[in-house]
Amino acid sequence: MKSEKQTNFSLELVNREAKPEGTVLNVEGVQIGGPEIVVMAGPCAVESWEQLLTTAEAIQAAGARILRGGAFKPRSSPYSFQGLKEEGLKLLVRVRKETGLPVVTEVMDTRQVELVCEYADILQIGSRNMQNFALLNEVGLCRKPVLLKRGMSATIDEYLLAAEYIFKQGNDKVILCERGIRTFETSTRNTLDLNAVPMLKRRSHLPVIVDPSHGTGHWWMVPPLARAAVAAGADGLLIEVHYDPQKALSDGAQSLKPDKFGQLMKELRAVGKAVGKGISS
Amino acid sequence: MKSEKQTNFSLELVNREAKPEGTVLNVEGVQIGGPEIVVMAGPCAVESWEQLLTTAEAIQAAGARILRGGAFKPRSSPYSFQGLKEEGLKLLVRVRKETGLPVVTEVMDTRQVELVCEYADILQIGSRNMQNFALLNEVGLCRKPVLLKRGMSATIDEYLLAAEYIFKQGNDKVILCERGIRTFETSTRNTLDLNAVPMLKRRSHLPVIVDPSHGTGHWWMVPPLARAAVAAGADGLLIEVHYDPQKALSDGAQSLKPDKFGQLMKELRAVGKAVGKGISS
Amino acid sequence: MKSEKQTNFSLELVNREAKPEGTVLNVEGVQIGGPEIVVMAGPCAVESWEQLLTTAEAIQAAGARILRGGAFKPRSSPYSFQGLKEEGLKLLVRVRKETGLPVVTEVMDTRQVELVCEYADILQIGSRNMQNFALLNEVGLCRKPVLLKRGMSATIDEYLLAAEYIFKQGNDKVILCERGIRTFETSTRNTLDLNAVPMLKRRSHLPVIVDPSHGTGHWWMVPPLARAAVAAGADGLLIEVHYDPQKALSDGAQSLKPDKFGQLMKELRAVGKAVGKGISS
Amino acid sequence: MKSEKQTNFSLELVNREAKPEGTVLNVEGVQIGGPEIVVMAGPCAVESWEQLLTTAEAIQAAGARILRGGAFKPRSSPYSFQGLKEEGLKLLVRVRKETGLPVVTEVMDTRQVELVCEYADILQIGSRNMQNFALLNEVGLCRKPVLLKRGMSATIDEYLLAAEYIFKQGNDKVILCERGIRTFETSTRNTLDLNAVPMLKRRSHLPVIVDPSHGTGHWWMVPPLARAAVAAGADGLLIEVHYDPQKALSDGAQSLKPDKFGQLMKELRAVGKAVGKGISS
Repeated sequence: MKSEKQTNFSLELVNREAKPEGTVLNVEGVQIGGPEIVVMAGPCAVESWEQLLTTAEAIQAAGARILRGGAFKPRSSPYSFQGLKEEGLKLLVRVRKETGLPVVTEVMDTRQVELVCEYADILQIGSRNMQNFALLNEVGLCRKPVLLKRGMSATIDEYLLAAEYIFKQGNDKVILCERGIRTFETSTRNTLDLNAVPMLKRRSHLPVIVDPSHGTGHWWMVPPLARAAVAAGADGLLIEVHYDPQKALSDGAQSLKPDKFGQLMKELRAVGKAVGKGISS
Repeated sequence: MKSEKQTNFSLELVNREAKPEGTVLNVEGVQIGGPEIVVMAGPCAVESWEQLLTTAEAIQAAGARILRGGAFKPRSSPYSFQGLKEEGLKLLVRVRKETGLPVVTEVMDTRQVELVCEYADILQIGSRNMQNFALLNEVGLCRKPVLLKRGMSATIDEYLLAAEYIFKQGNDKVILCERGIRTFETSTRNTLDLNAVPMLKRRSHLPVIVDPSHGTGHWWMVPPLARAAVAAGADGLLIEVHYDPQKALSDGAQSLKPDKFGQLMKELRAVGKAVGKGISS
Repeated sequence: MKSEKQTNFSLELVNREAKPEGTVLNVEGVQIGGPEIVVMAGPCAVESWEQLLTTAEAIQAAGARILRGGAFKPRSSPYSFQGLKEEGLKLLVRVRKETGLPVVTEVMDTRQVELVCEYADILQIGSRNMQNFALLNEVGLCRKPVLLKRGMSATIDEYLLAAEYIFKQGNDKVILCERGIRTFETSTRNTLDLNAVPMLKRRSHLPVIVDPSHGTGHWWMVPPLARAAVAAGADGLLIEVHYDPQKALSDGAQSLKPDKFGQLMKELRAVGKAVGKGISS
Repeated sequence: MKSEKQTNFSLELVNREAKPEGTVLNVEGVQIGGPEIVVMAGPCAVESWEQLLTTAEAIQAAGARILRGGAFKPRSSPYSFQGLKEEGLKLLVRVRKETGLPVVTEVMDTRQVELVCEYADILQIGSRNMQNFALLNEVGLCRKPVLLKRGMSATIDEYLLAAEYIFKQGNDKVILCERGIRTFETSTRNTLDLNAVPMLKRRSHLPVIVDPSHGTGHWWMVPPLARAAVAAGADGLLIEVHYDPQKALSDGAQSLKPDKFGQLMKELRAVGKAVGKGISS
């Protein structure tokens, strides 16, 4: 028997041959997968109006095009902060009105999909739910773009099959996101697998973005890995920014302060230019 | 920053100190976690009345106490057989009536929990959903025992925290199940981690069973690893049995035929005796 | 391209077909690979005459047939104790004379092979040297049996190819030893891969033993995993025993005290009997 | 017990604090670890005078500063091509005379160190020998720079401790090289861990280079990952180039043809410029 992880499953819809020119998604005027690298930034978790607005204005000023922020938070421990839930979604929408930034936020339960769709511009499926097939089917039935994060121990085959689930239900707006895989290494939270960028681009026609915050777990490693992701051909980045990381309710250690983020955006523009890609300023 | 996988999260409810004598669950008269090893067996997927009944009678005759069978099947590919769904649940109940065997079956979606609860004696949470926190919370609210399989790349800490989610909602009937972890090795489907058996028994008070079928991926490896699991101190086993593995709609390569299963049960009785445990015959 | 770890390399000499009945090695009268399980025990590192003799007498009284003890120690840090070197070899030989126990000890350098051959009955190649091909070739040229430990991240294919190197030079006395592989799990030192036991027995004709001390890293996990190894079909065990683990210069945390070792031997006899194997008493 | 892979070993000599300004090595006039990125290129294995000279001239014309080529080849199978050995070393020296390129080549056995030192400008320790402590000690006693490749499953701690072994013997000319780690992913030969670049630079004062050829296993992935390595802050690259990859005796699938390599060097110059580093042309 071939082990399941080796088997070559057939992909009908997300494979590169199905759309050789590649997919470019339009999210409220922001093109993802095109000639410009799209940076999505914001706090790990939505905590308050002030926190969210301050951060949103800062990342927008630095050139980010999409605001990220978790309202429903998947946490290893039931005793950790679980997010502001619908109140968090409402804050995201208020900040979108204020800034014009489209928002991406996570959905964790099939029963929440309708609710989150009302508020979000992009639905995020987190790593732990990459093979939550009921949830994949459900977001496959809605018409919002889906940012599908790679599972911690998902092979490239399994990852593309998860995207195929969404496509098969009729939703062809999927963005892939490499966010680090689980390995034996303990000095970093995960091992960011940048091999995945060219591999996913070759195997599928979907936009591929990279999350160096979860991929490293250390704020000081985010800039070099973000630059590397752009150099490797990523279509975008997902970066955690918090104006007071030490007080963050989640993932403070891997969050950049706004000034560091601004500096990083300049560096990314230089690297983007070197590989023929623009980044909005 | 400590990476999340290293952090020592506190366990309030499932840790050994909370119940030093250990938990023994009673499932329709079958004691799990007590002096007798409980074997749960049956097909990976429920396929038909004939398949299920034939298999159930065979495993019962050999000494298994609980019937397993998937009605909702999590499959890597959307093009693979996804299970008979509610029809499968109905077949399980009919076979339970016929044989008296309690049934364990998987639930994959928060919206199905109520339905599956009506049919099943034990709800199974599959590996891919071990950190589907919405689902953990939902099964935490019902009163049926939950068989929680370890995630493919879940640390012991994360695994126990997942059980803690269920307890925290009020359901204290959780069975742990080591089913193989994902490693670099490709000759087996997963790497069965029997270290987990004494570690989980020491850290928590919950019954711990082992699934050598998924843990190896090869039917001929199931007997030696099932024996090993008993020798390592497992409270039970979950074993795939199919009367015609080559025609199985799922996981045929790792399913034992009834006669091999009967032979294995004899071997398990001998090993059980060596470690002071009984197995029903 | 197939990645190297997937490629199916051909084995000419160590594959099961080359000797379907299996290899039984005779080491100074001790049969390895036959109907009796052979336990090799002793301290991680040879530290002194008293330590070694006391331990040897204790393990012999409990039924162990071969004495293990490191004279040349591979240590991650250059500042850790590196072994007594030739003085350690001399102590091993003196204790062999006193007790009659054959000795197994590690060789780390091609230039030491001749020296270690003069003293040892079995040469051990450690995990970190499993693909030290110069060393494999060198021990292949001598006539002493070789205990080849599996590399921390070696696939079954690579492991058997390493044994093939030794055979190809003319030495057909190789014992395989599963000792845990490196995975994401951090609660144990390694993940003992008992899947490897039936897989190696099926693929090759060589005796297969298991080292639960390195495979777990915790002394209290050694008994359950040692029992499991026997139940899975191992031909022997390699177990660290120290009469004062807290003062051990290496690996104290995973060493059993002699009384616990004696208790374990009794348990192993019971499990051995259950699977049709004897253990000397 | 803390598992060995977690323990925080102390580094005396290679840690960043020992030399905050960082180490710049001078290899026959080529500065490694300075403001210029150094590209080392050439065939996996030295095969013939023509092959080596042709390749050397091509990579030199494209801007590479150091010639790589294996004379002693570590191969998983004893039946694979094992290298031209001393004849290969002689070819390397002849090509160095012809081109002026310093050469880096692997040493696999303590007994070969003296010989290889006579020919090579940089001694390479391969991944499989990263914890061959006898070999580390031996190259620590010679005065040639050592390119120490990271082991396939070595943590950052273990890797730096291996470098510490070399330093402790008196050789302070060590170059680190990330070359991919072993993970569950099977679509690539290894998982290139670019997290390691900033982590190694922060923890130690040694130059850090990256090998995208072994790190990916596919020639078409080498350019994006080489660019990424430069963007992440690597001090250099090690790249396999072969003028006829399909006929290569080793690693053809991951070797670039000279024209692709020339194109890559142009791209690297652009990325280097973006991060403030030069690359010779």
